[in-house]
Amino acid sequence: MEKTKILEKVFKVFLIFVPLSLFAEYTHSSPIAIFVLASLAIIPLAKFIGESTEEISAYTGPALGGLLNATFGNATELIISFFSLQAGLTEMVKASITGSIIGNLLLILGMAFFFGGLGKDEQKFNTTAAKTSASTLFLATAAIVMPAVFVLTSENPSAETIETLSIAVSVIMAVSYLASLLFSLHTHKHLYTVDTSECVARWSVKKSVSILLASTVTVAVMSEILVGSIEPLAESFGWTELFIGMIFIAIIGNAAEHVSAITIAIKDRMDLSLQIAIGSTTQIAMFVVPVLVFTSYFFKNPMNLIFTTFELAAIVSAVLMVKSIIEDGKSNWFEGLQLLGTYGIMVVVSFLHP
Amino acid sequence: MEKTKILEKVFKVFLIFVPLSLFAEYTHSSPIAIFVLASLAIIPLAKFIGESTEEISAYTGPALGGLLNATFGNATELIISFFSLQAGLTEMVKASITGSIIGNLLLILGMAFFFGGLGKDEQKFNTTAAKTSASTLFLATAAIVMPAVFVLTSENPSAETIETLSIAVSVIMAVSYLASLLFSLHTHKHLYTVDTSECVARWSVKKSVSILLASTVTVAVMSEILVGSIEPLAESFGWTELFIGMIFIAIIGNAAEHVSAITIAIKDRMDLSLQIAIGSTTQIAMFVVPVLVFTSYFFKNPMNLIFTTFELAAIVSAVLMVKSIIEDGKSNWFEGLQLLGTYGIMVVVSFLHP
Amino acid sequence: MEKTKILEKVFKVFLIFVPLSLFAEYTHSSPIAIFVLASLAIIPLAKFIGESTEEISAYTGPALGGLLNATFGNATELIISFFSLQAGLTEMVKASITGSIIGNLLLILGMAFFFGGLGKDEQKFNTTAAKTSASTLFLATAAIVMPAVFVLTSENPSAETIETLSIAVSVIMAVSYLASLLFSLHTHKHLYTVDTSECVARWSVKKSVSILLASTVTVAVMSEILVGSIEPLAESFGWTELFIGMIFIAIIGNAAEHVSAITIAIKDRMDLSLQIAIGSTTQIAMFVVPVLVFTSYFFKNPMNLIFTTFELAAIVSAVLMVKSIIEDGKSNWFEGLQLLGTYGIMVVVSFLHP
Repeated sequence: MEKTKILEKVFKVFLIFVPLSLFAEYTHSSPIAIFVLASLAIIPLAKFIGESTEEISAYTGPALGGLLNATFGNATELIISFFSLQAGLTEMVKASITGSIIGNLLLILGMAFFFGGLGKDEQKFNTTAAKTSASTLFLATAAIVMPAVFVLTSENPSAETIETLSIAVSVIMAVSYLASLLFSLHTHKHLYTVDTSECVARWSVKKSVSILLASTVTVAVMSEILVGSIEPLAESFGWTELFIGMIFIAIIGNAAEHVSAITIAIKDRMDLSLQIAIGSTTQIAMFVVPVLVFTSYFFKNPMNLIFTTFELAAIVSAVLMVKSIIEDGKSNWFEGLQLLGTYGIMVVVSFLHP
Repeated sequence: MEKTKILEKVFKVFLIFVPLSLFAEYTHSSPIAIFVLASLAIIPLAKFIGESTEEISAYTGPALGGLLNATFGNATELIISFFSLQAGLTEMVKASITGSIIGNLLLILGMAFFFGGLGKDEQKFNTTAAKTSASTLFLATAAIVMPAVFVLTSENPSAETIETLSIAVSVIMAVSYLASLLFSLHTHKHLYTVDTSECVARWSVKKSVSILLASTVTVAVMSEILVGSIEPLAESFGWTELFIGMIFIAIIGNAAEHVSAITIAIKDRMDLSLQIAIGSTTQIAMFVVPVLVFTSYFFKNPMNLIFTTFELAAIVSAVLMVKSIIEDGKSNWFEGLQLLGTYGIMVVVSFLHP
Repeated sequence: MEKTKILEKVFKVFLIFVPLSLFAEYTHSSPIAIFVLASLAIIPLAKFIGESTEEISAYTGPALGGLLNATFGNATELIISFFSLQAGLTEMVKASITGSIIGNLLLILGMAFFFGGLGKDEQKFNTTAAKTSASTLFLATAAIVMPAVFVLTSENPSAETIETLSIAVSVIMAVSYLASLLFSLHTHKHLYTVDTSECVARWSVKKSVSILLASTVTVAVMSEILVGSIEPLAESFGWTELFIGMIFIAIIGNAAEHVSAITIAIKDRMDLSLQIAIGSTTQIAMFVVPVLVFTSYFFKNPMNLIFTTFELAAIVSAVLMVKSIIEDGKSNWFEGLQLLGTYGIMVVVSFLHP
């Protein structure tokens, strides 16, 4: 309880980075300063979006609340991605999707298993909900692998064909996502852990909605500043869009989930920890990806579903490894370390990749 | 019971398509008409081959009966493939093998889980036999992946080397198939569900053999007509051999299994439903494939074992996904939908593939 | 008991090949004679290294003993690899690593399951330790796959970048290996089967150390002779470095483990059999590979971590197949045969590969 309160205070203190990054932006500070300040500012805002959504859910009842959570849970990733697409950083957005998937599966789950497992023989968790998410991950993987294989094995497919393919596959992902909501919120809701907050509202409806709106708008402003700093940053450090997207943007966009999943794992509540880490991954794959594909057609550079071979290999490795580790319903510190080791390999390779 | 009777009547009514497709062929109707009529004619005939084989098994005892079933269960696919090889449609035959594998694993099993699971919390099945089949699928996958990787990583391997490779791998698959019969019919027959018909013969031996022979000959005639319509059909619609083979021919060749597996799943007899869907897949991979490789050397265009990268990706995705979904011995409608979604992705990609 | 004694005598008789291969080497016999004699000489020596290490462990206590076993268990592979790297046979060393991984997983485990399972309905084993090893295999696979994908997807990466990548990934593998020792020898040692010898020393410390030193020196001499015969052998038979490394060198380097794992499986002690086969694989991937990468920088031709696509496909297939077969904690002869069939496919493909 006390640790949670300290964490909440830390989050509030982090709000100082909002004015600081605005100041840095308007005084034309160095790109690295702007990037770091805007990143730090987004972390508490993402947390406030999450909290205010939960508060609103307490008034709407579990079904609509679950839907709200599922949608706003990825608001930060979506907003950063929109500004990146507008800036023409299409490859970086795809890299950040890849990074969110492997980050949630390898980094978050790795830290949750490692820190949660220290000093314990093993930690147990219910596998039914985790397995359903795992099969959603396989569908998402197929949805990401097949279009890329299509391009690899076709000779110069037309942009139109790639567009049709991306939209058709995105429609299938979106339908499957809607079905997964029906499954988890209606026909099989008993499989899913009830949230600990026990849905007792601490804030009024008005306060919740105000905080949600204010945080969302501020995240948008911060994201625009952040995205604006990426190109000069990449140039001055010699980093690639792949590396920035896959490692930094992915971690910033998922920071709130990172903190929750790990603190919850240390309290030995592994079911909820897994639900956050894996649930967040499937939402990115099945909800964020199709939304970005659809909406990107309003931008100059539409985003297709063609990931690079390197991204495919990273996603397939992460999905197979996590599937293998969670299926016995037990974890220990060494399994966490192995996930972290695999993440380390991905970081090294994406850093060196030209 | 009643539904089964209605289904049987529907099958008998479908026999009308035999004379209709003969008529269409000899009046030189449009290729699409010939293709559709011949396809519809093959469905009841495949069913009669299956039924007469089962009747004969009732007289021969389970061991020889199982062998007969295993052999004639794929008679339709084999006959269509023979005529296609004779017509030089080698790539289409390989696409139809790919399509049979992913069709059985994703489409049939997906529909069985989806329709079987509607309105139920979960459906359970015994995993021992399913798992043995799954490991056979991994062997089959390795047998299909390794020769393709060989060709991808060799610079212009000679036709002779590819022939040697195809035959050597086919011999290993055939030996493993014979061993699987020894396993399922002799040393570990207790693992396999006994068929519901309880082996009480309804037909005399003479009637059974006559129906078997008549159906097989008629399937052969229909297949020749069907195959003859493929090239003009492909031309007029702009479809590829890949698409026709992987989707249409695969569904026609396995239509009887499709209907059985789904009706049985709705009756909640999941063990038998899985046995049909997965057993049919392993039979295609381990029996039909080597038989086609061996016999194709009597045709002008021998069929090698080199599948395309696209086909490999489809097979590997399907095998890993089904493996992941069946291993907990439970299914629900959403898992079925995910299999169907993955199949949908394959259909889209194979349709757009040049 | 009696069979074990006969086996021990056979091993002692095999020592005759030590002087024979020395004789063949100094009379400049044909390369095939030298290769076969040196190979046969290494088998009993590898066994003596293993036994003397176990004897020493009885004096040092289990923790240090486990460490000794883990290190000297791969002494033979390491020594052969050092001489091969010195001779510039870098590709052969990587092929022999691939061959050790697939040989342990498919050939040894296949023979253990096949011969162990004959005449039995099923053999059971504890899956906890096996599963932890399996997740180490996934990490090792990611460590082998990602650098290769890096090279495949970069345009002409510099030798320096590949060196940095190989060393960084090797460091991660080495750290994970040290963590696995901490896990298996300290925090979770209760998961691992205690060795049957029950740690009662039969030999004095002096005798054990003498035998260990003598065997290691003799293995080194034999390895130098063996490696010297490889190039002329490859030339006269038209064999590739890939084939010799992946099949022959891999089998010779792991012969002692082969014999132990199979004889133990026949005695129905599957836990220990799996521990040898899978433990040996993870040691090669996580200990031998980084040691070779690090030390190879003292040779003219440093060994990088870039395996060929063919080797990747072989390793990934083997890991996924074994993972699938062991996860239910049961085995039977047919599963063994399927592993052997998959190994057979690898042999055929590596033999025909140019």
